[in-house]
Amino acid sequence: MGSRLKVGIIGAGRIGNVHALSIKNLIPEVEIKAVSDVRYEAAKEMSSKHGIPYAYEDYHEILQDPEIDAVLICSSTDTHAQIAIEAAEAKKHIFCEKPVDLTVERVKEVMEAVERNNVKIQIGFNRRFDHNFKKVKELIDNGQLGDVHVVKITSRDPEPPNIDYVKASGGLFLDMTIHDFDMARFLTGSEVKEVYAIADCKIDPLIGQEGDVDTAVITLKFENGIIGVIDNSRKAAYGYDQRVEVFGSKGMVRTENDTPSTAVWSVAEGTITEKPKYFFLERYMDSFAEEMKVFMDVILKDKNPPVSVIDGLKSLEIGLAAKKSHKLGMPVSLE
Amino acid sequence: MGSRLKVGIIGAGRIGNVHALSIKNLIPEVEIKAVSDVRYEAAKEMSSKHGIPYAYEDYHEILQDPEIDAVLICSSTDTHAQIAIEAAEAKKHIFCEKPVDLTVERVKEVMEAVERNNVKIQIGFNRRFDHNFKKVKELIDNGQLGDVHVVKITSRDPEPPNIDYVKASGGLFLDMTIHDFDMARFLTGSEVKEVYAIADCKIDPLIGQEGDVDTAVITLKFENGIIGVIDNSRKAAYGYDQRVEVFGSKGMVRTENDTPSTAVWSVAEGTITEKPKYFFLERYMDSFAEEMKVFMDVILKDKNPPVSVIDGLKSLEIGLAAKKSHKLGMPVSLE
Amino acid sequence: MGSRLKVGIIGAGRIGNVHALSIKNLIPEVEIKAVSDVRYEAAKEMSSKHGIPYAYEDYHEILQDPEIDAVLICSSTDTHAQIAIEAAEAKKHIFCEKPVDLTVERVKEVMEAVERNNVKIQIGFNRRFDHNFKKVKELIDNGQLGDVHVVKITSRDPEPPNIDYVKASGGLFLDMTIHDFDMARFLTGSEVKEVYAIADCKIDPLIGQEGDVDTAVITLKFENGIIGVIDNSRKAAYGYDQRVEVFGSKGMVRTENDTPSTAVWSVAEGTITEKPKYFFLERYMDSFAEEMKVFMDVILKDKNPPVSVIDGLKSLEIGLAAKKSHKLGMPVSLE
Amino acid sequence: MGSRLKVGIIGAGRIGNVHALSIKNLIPEVEIKAVSDVRYEAAKEMSSKHGIPYAYEDYHEILQDPEIDAVLICSSTDTHAQIAIEAAEAKKHIFCEKPVDLTVERVKEVMEAVERNNVKIQIGFNRRFDHNFKKVKELIDNGQLGDVHVVKITSRDPEPPNIDYVKASGGLFLDMTIHDFDMARFLTGSEVKEVYAIADCKIDPLIGQEGDVDTAVITLKFENGIIGVIDNSRKAAYGYDQRVEVFGSKGMVRTENDTPSTAVWSVAEGTITEKPKYFFLERYMDSFAEEMKVFMDVILKDKNPPVSVIDGLKSLEIGLAAKKSHKLGMPVSLE
Repeated sequence: MGSRLKVGIIGAGRIGNVHALSIKNLIPEVEIKAVSDVRYEAAKEMSSKHGIPYAYEDYHEILQDPEIDAVLICSSTDTHAQIAIEAAEAKKHIFCEKPVDLTVERVKEVMEAVERNNVKIQIGFNRRFDHNFKKVKELIDNGQLGDVHVVKITSRDPEPPNIDYVKASGGLFLDMTIHDFDMARFLTGSEVKEVYAIADCKIDPLIGQEGDVDTAVITLKFENGIIGVIDNSRKAAYGYDQRVEVFGSKGMVRTENDTPSTAVWSVAEGTITEKPKYFFLERYMDSFAEEMKVFMDVILKDKNPPVSVIDGLKSLEIGLAAKKSHKLGMPVSLE
Repeated sequence: MGSRLKVGIIGAGRIGNVHALSIKNLIPEVEIKAVSDVRYEAAKEMSSKHGIPYAYEDYHEILQDPEIDAVLICSSTDTHAQIAIEAAEAKKHIFCEKPVDLTVERVKEVMEAVERNNVKIQIGFNRRFDHNFKKVKELIDNGQLGDVHVVKITSRDPEPPNIDYVKASGGLFLDMTIHDFDMARFLTGSEVKEVYAIADCKIDPLIGQEGDVDTAVITLKFENGIIGVIDNSRKAAYGYDQRVEVFGSKGMVRTENDTPSTAVWSVAEGTITEKPKYFFLERYMDSFAEEMKVFMDVILKDKNPPVSVIDGLKSLEIGLAAKKSHKLGMPVSLE
Repeated sequence: MGSRLKVGIIGAGRIGNVHALSIKNLIPEVEIKAVSDVRYEAAKEMSSKHGIPYAYEDYHEILQDPEIDAVLICSSTDTHAQIAIEAAEAKKHIFCEKPVDLTVERVKEVMEAVERNNVKIQIGFNRRFDHNFKKVKELIDNGQLGDVHVVKITSRDPEPPNIDYVKASGGLFLDMTIHDFDMARFLTGSEVKEVYAIADCKIDPLIGQEGDVDTAVITLKFENGIIGVIDNSRKAAYGYDQRVEVFGSKGMVRTENDTPSTAVWSVAEGTITEKPKYFFLERYMDSFAEEMKVFMDVILKDKNPPVSVIDGLKSLEIGLAAKKSHKLGMPVSLE
Repeated sequence: MGSRLKVGIIGAGRIGNVHALSIKNLIPEVEIKAVSDVRYEAAKEMSSKHGIPYAYEDYHEILQDPEIDAVLICSSTDTHAQIAIEAAEAKKHIFCEKPVDLTVERVKEVMEAVERNNVKIQIGFNRRFDHNFKKVKELIDNGQLGDVHVVKITSRDPEPPNIDYVKASGGLFLDMTIHDFDMARFLTGSEVKEVYAIADCKIDPLIGQEGDVDTAVITLKFENGIIGVIDNSRKAAYGYDQRVEVFGSKGMVRTENDTPSTAVWSVAEGTITEKPKYFFLERYMDSFAEEMKVFMDVILKDKNPPVSVIDGLKSLEIGLAAKKSHKLGMPVSLE
């Protein structure tokens, strides 16, 4: 490894740019050497915007560069597994956006490639690094809530994605709830043994026509006895709603949404505060930076990644079980 | 009917006294003529405390008094149905504490007796009259939340009841959650078609030894498509936790717990507010008074009771289905 | 003194009725024997509404009734002192609404009459009995805030009084701020040694034409070194605003306004809570009842009244100094 | 001006580093060419940390570099005016930390030098760029509060500065309250015409020995009729307390403190939220970045600086008047 860690970013979309910015601004030990995108223009633009020396159309150019120590896989979901496997073979450390893949088999192939080549892989469950949820985890771990009995997660988007996105997304449970499944596993420190999903299409009939749902309530039984509940909506009229509540034998913790300001104004209509920060980029900006710092630290100090491909696999399995539960109208066991 | 409406109270326990106080203080059109209790001393004491002219051991004395227009059944649960049927036959209007009975058959017998005798009956689901939940209902009915998608109810007691109470209670779902089932029906304006209950004994092993649970998460599918979630605990370390959240196409409403004061103090440890009001008597005092006023109004102005024996029956059926669901580990249909 | 304490109420207006209700509902040891009002019809109406045996036009009939132990003076401000002096001479205990009088001399005459006749007098500074402010006082007295450095009081009405009321009121400082002066003395446990008042007529020009103000910021230096600030407005568009903040060496406490419900709704416009309870009757209902209970206890158990005529005198002196300060544009010393 | 704007930073202390970071991370159009500090080691360290090409002991080397377009004056307060005058003569644009100087004469000399040389100067009143206070200003400017009647500012530090700092600071009013004076001018859009300051040494006797105070309540009369109140403390046990409240004819707005997370935990002791962010660096980080972006924009687009040396002068004059008021125990007029 050279004096500075060198990374390549595969995928010059929104999240690729977010990670580039975090690295440039906050991680002086790391240099972004190259970016690639199937849309070459996007790679060029990102390269010039962030002062990245090389821009490619083909990600193999990044994998073949012996100077590059690690890659960030920020391309479309269907390419994650293939690129991750090739990156592992090329002995690059890997940061891979979620989900790794929509099938368990492919995720397992990634796991094997990573192990075989002895590289590190971290999955982009950024919410674990969010200031609010970290505080919740800290209160649990400190024992301030006692034994945890119930974990409740509310996760609602400000507006539904466009229908093309929906078609390729794997559906609500694999695209949206997967973050909540990971959060539930993170907070409980345990594995799900049963899922029951009630879901419906209440917001956008086009979503229903694709066989997908936009509203769901999912209950989870955990191996350690904790009961979990997640509720999702693709559209909250008041904005991005991201809250958790954990109830235990000694107390409860809840988080509220982040808002652009703390201003509270009282007028003839009532007392008003601002809507939540608009969407995931605004809401979770600090967590994207934090996960990137942690990933670089994992490589530089040879640590275990805090979010592994196992975590990606487990959430995928829960998501697939939730899909099945919704279809059957019955709880579904995981093994 | 005389110049003032005359009522008798059957049962001189805690809730009987609460109703006596409400009537005396807030409903000048009504006179409490008699109170009875199987423990005659209790009836005597309540009689002298509230200036009630007659105290009896046997409730039949109340039923036989032709001057008495209505009775409040505040005795132990197992006596509710029998007294209600006899009161109906005696042509008394009836206010009956919940649950009417722990079996569907007996509740139906009460319904028939009431209809046959053309008297009015109102069931003691006092929470419908609570200032917070009435505001939620108002926001729903005004259309400010749009179409309702999800209703969430959190209901946690400050401490578990003693084990003798548990034995006679019919269990968590019929004793505690029954209030939440009624609240869910009240807020959604719809009937439950499926229940799924996850429950456990996490707080008091004695409760488990009685075959009962103290912690539960229950999901409900309503006929009109709304999804409901209730979570219960017999012991919240921080006190009586009574909140609802309703999410709809135009917005969300949440209620917070009532506290003894609005004081917020900031000290070296953080920013602190008071614990919730202690338990149901403190928290729901205004709703007990309100339901009594409404009941008297129902009689005096010949209105339909806002909480009928049907409401008692429906909540009982949901509770029994929840019990079955928990036993089977499967969702249970109603009908 | 007979078996039950007997009281007469002088003045059948709004506040007289409030006290009658508190006594009837909450203080069974006390009987209201008579009510008087210069408008005889008002006395008659109140008598029949609350079941008070006697109604008079002339309060002397109350003073001359040997059975009556205590009187509540709820008549117009300009009659308080005269009635109080006569009541003292008639050996009646006295509850007197604030202000006792608008001149220091008359208040002192009341004090002398009370002392000479060895009767008890309690002044109607009801806010000391409010659930929020009592909690603040408790936190101060418990030492949880350490040494108090600064006390801040915000007191704003939902709408200005009509102009006839303004004319007779003695002006903002004697009519409205006088409650806040008493609150400041209550919370600091100390006497004011200097007042500086900045004030203006910003809301209603008619108030200005009467030489009065409707907006003020008043600073207070206390003998024990605490600094006080009060801000007043005769009209807050969002409703009755009654808050205090106390800052000390170990922390701070603030109170928020009471609202009709705890509902918080999030819609496209933001997150909204209800406006404060409408005005002093709604906001301070519990404190009116509490002060009445305390007064009756003072008599029945021969205690010292917690709010004495000295308290009325001190607040009057501060109010007069504030008036002078505003006129001079300079701080004014007391003594 | 070259392709990228080039700046030099004079003073390699805490605030110099904050600005360097903001520029590097967020303003790609600007290059930091040099840094100077009387402690050469500090300049060297900052140079290597942020990749700044040149480090000097003597700031004249920066002023003499013809490539450098602008300087940031981040040195100790007593050097601000001298450096600013020399920088203006050298035709550099100037960002100068507050206060420009502790005397009115020197600030006027800076103003003259700036005007004579036709350069731009912006003063470091960063709080105007804070997300909370910007929202307050926006609500005022939008007319949502109607005519403003009262502005209240609370500003309390988490701990007092060390005594050496106090000695050189010019005292509470010029060092700490000066930010609040600027905030009051910013929010009211008006000039102060009278100040009255009540102040005391309640926290640290050493501060008193230096003739300074640590606790103050200051009232302000503005030319447009608004009344202002500021309260300060050098030590709030619960942390950095930075709030404003603005009351107007149509409503009120208040801001709350920023906290590290939104977590609210309810335990046996009560309901608890986190303490405020620790101190000004944590609390105002976003505003430091924002003011830097605005300053660079002022230069690049030839705009008027939003915070001019006049603003520095006005706040200084209010601060000096407050000092005098406290000494005299009387309100002091400005002009």
